[in-house]
Amino acid sequence: MDTLNDGIGRDSPHHRNLEHARAQVIEMLTRQAVERELVSRNEANSTAPADVVSQLVARQQHTALEQRLARFHPADIAFVLESLPPDAREMAWQLVRPERRGAVLLETTDAVRRSLIEDMPPSDIAAAFHHLDSDDIAELIASLPSDTGAEVLARLDSADQAEVRAVLSFPDGTVGALMDLDFIPVRDDASLEAVLRLLRRKKRLPAETNQIIVVDRAKVLRGVLTLEQLLLSEPEQMVADVMTTNPQFFYTDDPVPDAIDAFERYDLISAPVVNLHREVVGRITVDEIVDAIKDQQERDSLRQVGLREDEDLFAPVWQSGRNRWPWLALNLFTAFAASRVIGFYEPTIEKLVALATLMPIVASIGGNTGNQTMALVIRALSLGQLGGPLLQKMLIKELLIAAMNGAIWGTALGAVTFAIYHEFKLSAVIAGATLLELLVAAAAGAVIPVTLERFGRDPVLGSSVILTALTDSMGFLIFLGLATAVLV
Amino acid sequence: MDTLNDGIGRDSPHHRNLEHARAQVIEMLTRQAVERELVSRNEANSTAPADVVSQLVARQQHTALEQRLARFHPADIAFVLESLPPDAREMAWQLVRPERRGAVLLETTDAVRRSLIEDMPPSDIAAAFHHLDSDDIAELIASLPSDTGAEVLARLDSADQAEVRAVLSFPDGTVGALMDLDFIPVRDDASLEAVLRLLRRKKRLPAETNQIIVVDRAKVLRGVLTLEQLLLSEPEQMVADVMTTNPQFFYTDDPVPDAIDAFERYDLISAPVVNLHREVVGRITVDEIVDAIKDQQERDSLRQVGLREDEDLFAPVWQSGRNRWPWLALNLFTAFAASRVIGFYEPTIEKLVALATLMPIVASIGGNTGNQTMALVIRALSLGQLGGPLLQKMLIKELLIAAMNGAIWGTALGAVTFAIYHEFKLSAVIAGATLLELLVAAAAGAVIPVTLERFGRDPVLGSSVILTALTDSMGFLIFLGLATAVLV
Repeated sequence: MDTLNDGIGRDSPHHRNLEHARAQVIEMLTRQAVERELVSRNEANSTAPADVVSQLVARQQHTALEQRLARFHPADIAFVLESLPPDAREMAWQLVRPERRGAVLLETTDAVRRSLIEDMPPSDIAAAFHHLDSDDIAELIASLPSDTGAEVLARLDSADQAEVRAVLSFPDGTVGALMDLDFIPVRDDASLEAVLRLLRRKKRLPAETNQIIVVDRAKVLRGVLTLEQLLLSEPEQMVADVMTTNPQFFYTDDPVPDAIDAFERYDLISAPVVNLHREVVGRITVDEIVDAIKDQQERDSLRQVGLREDEDLFAPVWQSGRNRWPWLALNLFTAFAASRVIGFYEPTIEKLVALATLMPIVASIGGNTGNQTMALVIRALSLGQLGGPLLQKMLIKELLIAAMNGAIWGTALGAVTFAIYHEFKLSAVIAGATLLELLVAAAAGAVIPVTLERFGRDPVLGSSVILTALTDSMGFLIFLGLATAVLV
Repeated sequence: MDTLNDGIGRDSPHHRNLEHARAQVIEMLTRQAVERELVSRNEANSTAPADVVSQLVARQQHTALEQRLARFHPADIAFVLESLPPDAREMAWQLVRPERRGAVLLETTDAVRRSLIEDMPPSDIAAAFHHLDSDDIAELIASLPSDTGAEVLARLDSADQAEVRAVLSFPDGTVGALMDLDFIPVRDDASLEAVLRLLRRKKRLPAETNQIIVVDRAKVLRGVLTLEQLLLSEPEQMVADVMTTNPQFFYTDDPVPDAIDAFERYDLISAPVVNLHREVVGRITVDEIVDAIKDQQERDSLRQVGLREDEDLFAPVWQSGRNRWPWLALNLFTAFAASRVIGFYEPTIEKLVALATLMPIVASIGGNTGNQTMALVIRALSLGQLGGPLLQKMLIKELLIAAMNGAIWGTALGAVTFAIYHEFKLSAVIAGATLLELLVAAAAGAVIPVTLERFGRDPVLGSSVILTALTDSMGFLIFLGLATAVLV
């Protein structure tokens, strides 16, 4: 049973193992750096036998570390590299065997990939890509700076080049850009026995193959033959008699979110991808879908706060800081706009300074309510549940909820205000303002993402900043406006 | 090729198709309701031949709709049900054949599932569950109100009952609770031919079977035999000679996020699940993992705004409104706390009312910066990248970024303030306050999620409300405090 425990990440809980592996690599790298330091110092001074020994030790550790890394899964090497500071990362990268570098690069984040590739000449990069499938090469090239990408592309074999160019021609976010070109098509008029012979000749199946794609003479999709059908049917039967004739398939220009949705709904492992003539050009597999979902999840959580890209933990401060400028500038602008609303009411505040104390409460609850409504609407949009009449229904419902909660919590807020300031009119103003603000916030929370989507924009990116700008300004306007009318 | 186009959701882009299907169902339901209305009115008045015709028409449409639904994938029926208002939902649900109801219930959200089950007697529910695997039954029972769940459980076959109880005994969020009990184990001393014979006798393989689990006499995991190995090797070979001896596997008590991570990293389709004695007790499959990732994604986006559960679009206003109370109350409390900070400085504001106008800007930028830092830290935490020294490094980096951006944007804000108010000291105060506030916000954004996680709490839920409470209070405190010291 020992074999089951061998290798990192092969056992679970693997997080703990990865943590351990990273600690080991860091320790080895550090020790190595110290040894190297000693060696170079000694080299300068003398050539005593002690140096030879320490050189040997250093070389031994170097080899040990190299061997250790060679047993890692590429995804685990990527994980270790991502959490190493630049010097150690560079050192560890040198220890990854050239033929495995491509597989490791595929698993890193874009930011870390760029840092690893930075110092590699295009010929080395092309060599690292040599062992990859052309769709993986395309994915990597698409993430490189465009001049480096072009240079690397020019250095590939001409067959690879053509395939990579084909994949690169599909726009980002379509199934075509994500598909796998490696598949084995069979004809529907073949016998299962012939199919088995063909597969045995190939020696190995493409990754994630759970079904063989069946085509006709013109390469047009006819169906799929699952490995289960192939295994459990009599070898004399014909493919056409055994195959599934209405498989889920995708066009190259289908959007990736549709594919994600279908894989989730119908529990797919792989599906054929066809061009407009229904000719099979590739496959899309569940591992790409899982990666796409995870990517989307991470991107969404960062984009909500205005970070467009992942950041390398070890990127220079200057660079990371500038990443945040567009959002900071936008936020400053909207906060300033909201502040001008207050500026307009300065005479009122001068007469009753308690207004300045209470106004952020109204704005804050509005932001909270608006964000709740928005999260529900964005979710319903992404599930495709908001067809025409349903949208109207949802808007009405959110307004009713806002009215109910505004009445209840506005009254509560008014009561607390009365307890502090003993002014009935002020309490009535804050209660009324809370009710109105919640209605405005609910409407904004429903309308903003729907409008962004109608205009073909991503409802996640930026909707939160627009909402907060609106609820802040309106909160101040409603509260101070009511106060001016009632109190002054 | 027509077969490829047949059936809903079998073609892509399937969103459009689903929209179309839902519209059709709604139209049919509406027409049916009108017909029924007519029929019942006529029944009251007369028994003219016209009634017989309209009754026939109604019955015909009923049958047509039933047949149409029967061609839908259960996931598509669930989608249609979720977007129908209660009356139509109930009508459509009646048209779903009893033997398919369990499969449909598996695909709905919890909220809609409860609404569908509400009016069903436990015996009907148990009958609907009859065709499901025991792990799916367990999943459904876990989502029912506990008394209904117990009643349904008591009505199952005793064999099913035992299995369902076994699955229910694993805590939510562990691999055990997600695993599939349906698998075919083979012995490592069998020949491939014997395995093939065994599989052919079974007629079908369990869903998502890409590999056969290999065990020894004591049911202890020995390895896995992929269908590829089974197909491409000579039938005379022994399982032990062909199988993969170090497969990724999980313990029943491994946390689901670890399994998600491993499936993503190592591109798994299925993996054996073992108990503490390494005896195989089930499998975990990629479709469950995809569902778990999507669930987590949806839950996270709702939990960030304080909604613990998904809401049925058609749940009563009162119920949906109350769902939002805990968060509203918390938000009101923290906003009030921040407001008391301002209250403390009312004398200062009385002297210079411009402070009231400017103070929300400082608080707002602080919230923005803190949220950016927090999103990055939460992401790094979930990727397991923040071991001890790295955490310190990230904190220092975020503080440096905050210092840089605080200096730059604080100066800009000061300049604009000077342009409006022509007061140098006021401009200096707002510039200084912005710098300090960004430092506080960055520190809070890093420390809050890490602390929540250290104490075993979920860093997503609630971190945003704590952060905003802190950046608001500190923003007002820093700005008004500085102003009191410098200006008054």
